[in-house]
Amino acid sequence: MSKGEASALRTEPLLESEAVWTKLVKKTYKDANGVTRTWESAERRTRPKDSDIDGVGIVAILEKETGPEIVLQKQYRPPLDKIVIELPAGLIDAGETAEQAAIRELREETGYVAEVLETSPIMFNDPGFCNTNLRMVHVSVDMSLPENQDLKPALEESEFIEVFYIRLDALWEECIKLEAEGYAIDARIANLAEGIEIAKKFKL
Amino acid sequence: MSKGEASALRTEPLLESEAVWTKLVKKTYKDANGVTRTWESAERRTRPKDSDIDGVGIVAILEKETGPEIVLQKQYRPPLDKIVIELPAGLIDAGETAEQAAIRELREETGYVAEVLETSPIMFNDPGFCNTNLRMVHVSVDMSLPENQDLKPALEESEFIEVFYIRLDALWEECIKLEAEGYAIDARIANLAEGIEIAKKFKL
Repeated sequence: MSKGEASALRTEPLLESEAVWTKLVKKTYKDANGVTRTWESAERRTRPKDSDIDGVGIVAILEKETGPEIVLQKQYRPPLDKIVIELPAGLIDAGETAEQAAIRELREETGYVAEVLETSPIMFNDPGFCNTNLRMVHVSVDMSLPENQDLKPALEESEFIEVFYIRLDALWEECIKLEAEGYAIDARIANLAEGIEIAKKFKL
Repeated sequence: MSKGEASALRTEPLLESEAVWTKLVKKTYKDANGVTRTWESAERRTRPKDSDIDGVGIVAILEKETGPEIVLQKQYRPPLDKIVIELPAGLIDAGETAEQAAIRELREETGYVAEVLETSPIMFNDPGFCNTNLRMVHVSVDMSLPENQDLKPALEESEFIEVFYIRLDALWEECIKLEAEGYAIDARIANLAEGIEIAKKFKL
């Protein structure tokens, strides 16, 4: 199976009345001078009522003899009509915590069984445009477990995900290389890579 | 002027026919098994025809005696109805390069006059939900220039931005603190901070 076979056939305007997963809203607000203004915003319809986030991103770093490597995915994303380099990630189910969603999604998408190390603050993906957000959940993967040597992902029938790995110290240059090869780069991964480069440059 | 005075009065559904800045589209695509599927996606209407990005984020690091500090902003964002901790950022004007937009936006929003160091690959903000994207432009700020000591931002009348600074080596813990104080954290900043922490942890 090649993810390269997926591709967009057509793009049509979506009427507000037809949208099932997404919506547009108009926010009316008073600015700091007391002037009433409006702002258009996009939202997901899927955020559970008791949840303050839409989803989670998962940072799983495997400690290998050649150095630490981060678990990544290649997945076709219709909004971009491109294969995107992403962290394992997924939407929160009703009643789930960020940590539960992260452990579940990582197992479903990659097969890895993991334990939670740390959960991030809520991060907003594009605050001038939409309210979508996530927490990043950092996990540890015990490579001595048999499940983590014979991976058995459990993908949904509409999901096509290829798992791969990049050495942490080469993440930035690999992002540049992958873009040149035609992949789209998810912001979380590219910003993590930038943070690593900044830490190196300023010897933090 | 306090940004805390801004707040949302009401939220209404936005009809597709009324949306000026945003739109919803339905993508029809063939998956890797040849099955035809649809996907809902949100887009900005503002991306210039000749541009492959919506906007830029700007990484400006000031080298101070006490260590390097990153230039940040507090800005009320109606989609979240919160004050958001963000990098300086802005949308591309027609005919502009990412670098030109970054230099212009940094000057308008903060007053700093800068030079470009490096431009990132294109980063997609939320590839399962929307096609919005940006490049991060890393700049250097020459603090010996008189303009950079007597800052004169040129904000639009609808913009209310407070510039502040965080030491790079404390970025992660400051994000956690700012969230506890009620601010929302933009993903670019939080992911940069995570990257710095990862680099420290694995001694990259």
